[in-house]
Amino acid sequence: MTTLVVTPFLNEFKGNNTMANDLLTTLRHNMKEKHIDALYVPTADPHQTEYVGEHYQTRTFLTGFTGSAGTAVVTENDALLWTDGRYFIQAEREIEPAGFSLMKMATPGYPTVIEWLTQHMPEEATLAFNGQLLSQRQYESLETALKSKKIKLVSDDSLLESLWADRPALPKSRVFTHDIEFAGQTVKEKLDALRERMKDVDGTLLSSLNNIGWLFNFRGGDLQHDPIAYAYSLITKDNAILYLDPAKYDKAFSTDLEENGVTLKPYEAIWDDAKSIEGKMILDKATTSRALYEAFGQVEKVDRPEPVFLQKASLLAIEEENTRDAWLEDGVALVRFFRWLEAHVKDGKETEITASDELSELRKKGRHFLKDSFDTISAYADNAAMMHYKAAEETAKTLKPEGLYLIDSGGHYLSGTTDITRTVALGKPTDKERRDYTLVLKSHINLATAVFLHGMTGHYLDVLARQPLWKHHIDYKSGTGHAIGYLGGVHEGPQRISTVHIPVKLEENMVITIEPGIYREGEHGIRLENVYIVKEDGKAGTDRFMRFDCLSFVPFDRSLIDVSLLSDDELTWLNEYHADVYAKLSPRLSEEETAWLKKATEALGRS
Amino acid sequence: MTTLVVTPFLNEFKGNNTMANDLLTTLRHNMKEKHIDALYVPTADPHQTEYVGEHYQTRTFLTGFTGSAGTAVVTENDALLWTDGRYFIQAEREIEPAGFSLMKMATPGYPTVIEWLTQHMPEEATLAFNGQLLSQRQYESLETALKSKKIKLVSDDSLLESLWADRPALPKSRVFTHDIEFAGQTVKEKLDALRERMKDVDGTLLSSLNNIGWLFNFRGGDLQHDPIAYAYSLITKDNAILYLDPAKYDKAFSTDLEENGVTLKPYEAIWDDAKSIEGKMILDKATTSRALYEAFGQVEKVDRPEPVFLQKASLLAIEEENTRDAWLEDGVALVRFFRWLEAHVKDGKETEITASDELSELRKKGRHFLKDSFDTISAYADNAAMMHYKAAEETAKTLKPEGLYLIDSGGHYLSGTTDITRTVALGKPTDKERRDYTLVLKSHINLATAVFLHGMTGHYLDVLARQPLWKHHIDYKSGTGHAIGYLGGVHEGPQRISTVHIPVKLEENMVITIEPGIYREGEHGIRLENVYIVKEDGKAGTDRFMRFDCLSFVPFDRSLIDVSLLSDDELTWLNEYHADVYAKLSPRLSEEETAWLKKATEALGRS
Repeated sequence: MTTLVVTPFLNEFKGNNTMANDLLTTLRHNMKEKHIDALYVPTADPHQTEYVGEHYQTRTFLTGFTGSAGTAVVTENDALLWTDGRYFIQAEREIEPAGFSLMKMATPGYPTVIEWLTQHMPEEATLAFNGQLLSQRQYESLETALKSKKIKLVSDDSLLESLWADRPALPKSRVFTHDIEFAGQTVKEKLDALRERMKDVDGTLLSSLNNIGWLFNFRGGDLQHDPIAYAYSLITKDNAILYLDPAKYDKAFSTDLEENGVTLKPYEAIWDDAKSIEGKMILDKATTSRALYEAFGQVEKVDRPEPVFLQKASLLAIEEENTRDAWLEDGVALVRFFRWLEAHVKDGKETEITASDELSELRKKGRHFLKDSFDTISAYADNAAMMHYKAAEETAKTLKPEGLYLIDSGGHYLSGTTDITRTVALGKPTDKERRDYTLVLKSHINLATAVFLHGMTGHYLDVLARQPLWKHHIDYKSGTGHAIGYLGGVHEGPQRISTVHIPVKLEENMVITIEPGIYREGEHGIRLENVYIVKEDGKAGTDRFMRFDCLSFVPFDRSLIDVSLLSDDELTWLNEYHADVYAKLSPRLSEEETAWLKKATEALGRS
Repeated sequence: MTTLVVTPFLNEFKGNNTMANDLLTTLRHNMKEKHIDALYVPTADPHQTEYVGEHYQTRTFLTGFTGSAGTAVVTENDALLWTDGRYFIQAEREIEPAGFSLMKMATPGYPTVIEWLTQHMPEEATLAFNGQLLSQRQYESLETALKSKKIKLVSDDSLLESLWADRPALPKSRVFTHDIEFAGQTVKEKLDALRERMKDVDGTLLSSLNNIGWLFNFRGGDLQHDPIAYAYSLITKDNAILYLDPAKYDKAFSTDLEENGVTLKPYEAIWDDAKSIEGKMILDKATTSRALYEAFGQVEKVDRPEPVFLQKASLLAIEEENTRDAWLEDGVALVRFFRWLEAHVKDGKETEITASDELSELRKKGRHFLKDSFDTISAYADNAAMMHYKAAEETAKTLKPEGLYLIDSGGHYLSGTTDITRTVALGKPTDKERRDYTLVLKSHINLATAVFLHGMTGHYLDVLARQPLWKHHIDYKSGTGHAIGYLGGVHEGPQRISTVHIPVKLEENMVITIEPGIYREGEHGIRLENVYIVKEDGKAGTDRFMRFDCLSFVPFDRSLIDVSLLSDDELTWLNEYHADVYAKLSPRLSEEETAWLKKATEALGRS
């Protein structure tokens, strides 16, 4: 691809917002020279990873906006940033010095990016983007939307990047082998199983970093939370190539993989191989970048989810066994945390941040613990009404013995990944707080106790969680459940529970969260999240029925439960769950902790 | 298209099964001459109407099989008929003389039609079909499936038809205007509203007979049950053409339509117009025949459901008012019927057929009644376990004062179409019968009382009906609900409630059935069907919540309800429903009938 002349003064741009307008000026000058009318800058890396590493934060470099989601567009006269409601205030403050204006997503009066482009770009104009940062699917959506105006789409990975003088390098963190006692299958066994799943094609490309790490039994440290490393893979009937920076591993690592039938090549070598490979290959349009998709010039392309998604979605027996242990370690940390919270809130010295730090410290003591699996959401009072709130040092609330406190957190253990949310009362709860909490609990139980015919999707079951809330005209604006990787992404696919139809069936041993909520702006936020594994409930004739089996064991807040709102079945479920929590966690707790848990899990009766 | 030489002896084929092998011989001879390796014969008319009229029953002519669903395939060596479980016994008996063999659908060991063709047709062979009887969508599915074997698909509407010497002519029954007091809008108003729905295209073809009848405010008598006439329509910005046999209407009819901006042309004239019309047109691949789709050679084709489907799916205010009256007339007929049944069963003289006849007679007394809307399912004891059972004179069961009796029936009224199912005990019910009945009732209530966010589909809500049964590992192998036309098809689309995802949102004033069931082979069948209309339940912020409002008022059988299995909310729903039934129907009943209904709808309490 073409390169740009980078003038010396551009070095001054980095982190210097007062100079940022010069970046826009230079960018626009270069756009004009290249006959580019608009530049489209998404938030993404070449693997469509959920969290984007520093090397790929071009949108932040351009706009100054540090939030996790957003799309920027630059034309001759406009410099716009689209982001969602979580970030309106922060974004407005951050992008102003860079000369950008905010476009509020899902807000009346604001067009979507695509609507804006369709309305504002002249016929036959040229739109540029970095082909590494758009998936082929996103590229095709843009193409379809802009077809009627005959917009020309051009991939250019240097237009903006060449201006980024001190762009962080790609990380070089070492990878480590996920030992067989945790992985449960050798790489060779996993490759054999994968090839069984793709007999009708000659091979597949893997772009998803979670898929690659799982398949080759390694994990990395290229991102803050996700235990992954930048890599690609090509799997054919005879070959399994892992494209990974050789600086990240040692001889033992490569020997081990080679013995399992794997060829190691440098990360960048995928580009040459893409050009020369032939045959019928799976290229998943959702994970493959537009640039790499185009590079596969000789192959017959089959658009299908990377087959590893489904392969790893149902836990292996050893993975399940390990995960169950990880969840008990996690439960112990949370019990200690809530006991600590109860003891310290009255001092008036703890904040959303000190509480979150305390939980991280407690989790660290867990067996096989690696690191937190995502930024903890530690949200007090009305802050919890913001679904993705992240406490900041300067704005963190101090915890007081009143109101509700929500904590959504998780850990990466060698034995699995956790993600759990509880909401607790820090003082004597109000009737409204108890009613809302109990409605969310009913919602959780109604889905958690579902029995369903094999072959159904999470979308099909979603209404079971929403029905108890909808009857009170309350909805939550999020999905109900997501999959979790095994020492992998905390929001891995492919199964989901959502109002959106995703045609992925819930299969035995798939893991999924259930996390309904009530969010009242300016008041409180309540979310109750457990994680479940799908199991067979029984057969009847040719019918096979499935159910959810719980992995998470942490008490619900008894003081927030209005028993009069629970049916007999719901009350039974709650008391049995609490008995399980006590039975499973107490052997791992001290005497004092066990005494605390005993009270926290005591059976509730009708008054 | 080419024609065949029809030899004189072919006249003897009609209805003469012993000669039918000669039909196969001649057909195969003609296939060979035309280099056709296989002939594919579906059960369909050129409009993809649910019930197929005599003129189009080529599959019956070929195979002798008189059931309502099936596909025949003839090759040099094979003559096969695929049909479903309802018809296995009947089909085997009927097709044997014609030289056909049965292929059981959804039965282990039997391939589907497409699998069979893929497995048995040689590479580059030729498959023929009548292009009028396959929708474009079905054609494309066949094409895709047979692509890998490079099968050539050829449309031939005379290969089989030319051998059908006494083929019934197309019917010539008169159409009638659906007066404005029932239709609620003039044709001009409906055309204006339709054009509002298709501003982004130049026009649409209409093939669906229900859509055409509704849009032009007429109904016909070309089929036994559906009140429709064979017709096509082309709607553009300036023109609305109705293609209808002029023998079916008089001057008043045509003048009236012309005054509403409609041009009338003969039925066949669509073929010439298709060839000459230009512009961007909606051609719904699901309703448009392959042959007609191909005929539109000049247009830019947009594949989208005929816009009339959605336009007519939400009832107009006057349609709703009329429908509510039709349902009360229908309820009166059913109350009289169940009272009659109670009085006559003990005589031991009534059968499934005499009972069904009695109900038809009682319905005829209803205001604005036209005819039954489908063949009544009158099924006693284990016959009711067959979901689509149709009693025949020679096999009809005699009703006795024991066991369960299921009756699924409906009427066409000028004021709307009804469809309702009740199951009743003819004697003292067993515990198992009461348990099963109560579970089906719970299932019905759980969906009927749903509150849901606007924008959800019937698929999304389906689990609410199945959940109470699935918890007992019981499933029913049918959809949960279907739309009903307004003096139209009893199974009209587009909305459905089903385990299958159909992306049609439930909009206000859409009509839908709720009809869960339990079917125990060799024992009994229970189905409880009411029809509901979608209404707004209220708003909260930007959220709009919807609910189902009941149209059907007929008592449930109190003797079959085990109150101990009902929750308080379910019992309240039942008693309130019964109070409504009494309040709405009693003004239309005699004193004796009212007394009977009083008892039948008495509130149930906890014992």
